[in-house]
Amino acid sequence: MNSINNNIKVIGFDADDTLWDNEPFYRETEAEFCNLLKNYMPSEKLNEELFKTEINNLGTYGYGIKAFTLSLIETAIRISDGKVNAKTINGIIELGKKQLQQPVKLLSNVKNVLEELKSDFTLIVATKGDLLDQEKKLQKSNLTGYFRKVEVMSEKKENNYLNIIHRLDIAPNEFMMVGNSLKSDVIPVLNIGGYGVFVPYHTTWLHEHADENEIQNENFIKILSIAELPTLLKKK
Amino acid sequence: MNSINNNIKVIGFDADDTLWDNEPFYRETEAEFCNLLKNYMPSEKLNEELFKTEINNLGTYGYGIKAFTLSLIETAIRISDGKVNAKTINGIIELGKKQLQQPVKLLSNVKNVLEELKSDFTLIVATKGDLLDQEKKLQKSNLTGYFRKVEVMSEKKENNYLNIIHRLDIAPNEFMMVGNSLKSDVIPVLNIGGYGVFVPYHTTWLHEHADENEIQNENFIKILSIAELPTLLKKK
Repeated sequence: MNSINNNIKVIGFDADDTLWDNEPFYRETEAEFCNLLKNYMPSEKLNEELFKTEINNLGTYGYGIKAFTLSLIETAIRISDGKVNAKTINGIIELGKKQLQQPVKLLSNVKNVLEELKSDFTLIVATKGDLLDQEKKLQKSNLTGYFRKVEVMSEKKENNYLNIIHRLDIAPNEFMMVGNSLKSDVIPVLNIGGYGVFVPYHTTWLHEHADENEIQNENFIKILSIAELPTLLKKK
Repeated sequence: MNSINNNIKVIGFDADDTLWDNEPFYRETEAEFCNLLKNYMPSEKLNEELFKTEINNLGTYGYGIKAFTLSLIETAIRISDGKVNAKTINGIIELGKKQLQQPVKLLSNVKNVLEELKSDFTLIVATKGDLLDQEKKLQKSNLTGYFRKVEVMSEKKENNYLNIIHRLDIAPNEFMMVGNSLKSDVIPVLNIGGYGVFVPYHTTWLHEHADENEIQNENFIKILSIAELPTLLKKK
């Protein structure tokens, strides 16, 4: 915690569940999906089947609500052994559209923190998911003015971060990434020599889970709220 | 045609149907879709219904194969009055996955042209569609080495191009965009003061149609093959 250098130039923020709520909308859609299919399978088992479908489709579909909707439909057909009717499938399509049209709800303190940091640092968004969906949420959030650029990435791996850092023309240890996923926001950035700030969110998708106790890196920082970020970065 | 200045610094290339085939895969999927649903509706009428669904969903889903697949499913349910069975819908999901996994087939002369231009100009890709899908196609194409950057855009409108030009730190008349869509690749670039090179492709999605005879702009250029591009750009 005391080892942050004074040279951080760019701070990258994850978007979903770091700047605004996202996972709860997936959980809501899943709950409604389980309700639509309750005659075929209890919800716990159904969520397991859905997770299998999502992981199988990740390489083909990538992330985002359209990919999720297609996986919901595929799961419904498979677990019902082809018996699910078209009306139910239409209901699933509607759940996906509803989720795409959700309003954006900023997390507490986000705006204040960006306001406080904007004069000392270049701020960017580094997010994964569907391009159109992410751009829309950013517009609805009224936060665009704070960010120099928005990087929508197909994956958040070492190489993707190296590309961003390269284009920013900075060294890895001048970059800090802030997010709620150890696997996507923190570990790959630590691995390339940057700073990773973990701000846990109450809900995290199973696929994003990783164990913070296994991280042995002096550039790893955990804070319980994004509100702690400015203090962390106070120039000594 | 004689008015090209000697100051063009950056050439942007559209990807789908400019660098590689794309529309024919949509047409193939549509043909197989019509075949799956031939008992409900003749193909011409079905394609009209599909087009309506796609246009309705454009604001919510954006572009790309996942959006297309969801629109196919929605259309099947609507036109069959909810009678289409789950097996058929699963068949539609499979069509979408097959299309996402298509190999990339470069159009004639693309590689030679890029090779010839790469030392005199900065080359970029400016494409619309699904981020993961576009990145995968670019990797499969083996063309990544030619391009300084790849811009996957949610829309190809004046503002989107202005953002790109701004980030490139060039003037609009130092930018030339090459593509097969008047509506997306040519007209918005002409409108902001850049050069627009139209390379017609044999198949263009109805939504992308525009009339070239209506374009009155000295920065508008039409060529019949991308192979003509280097000659067009020969420094005088």
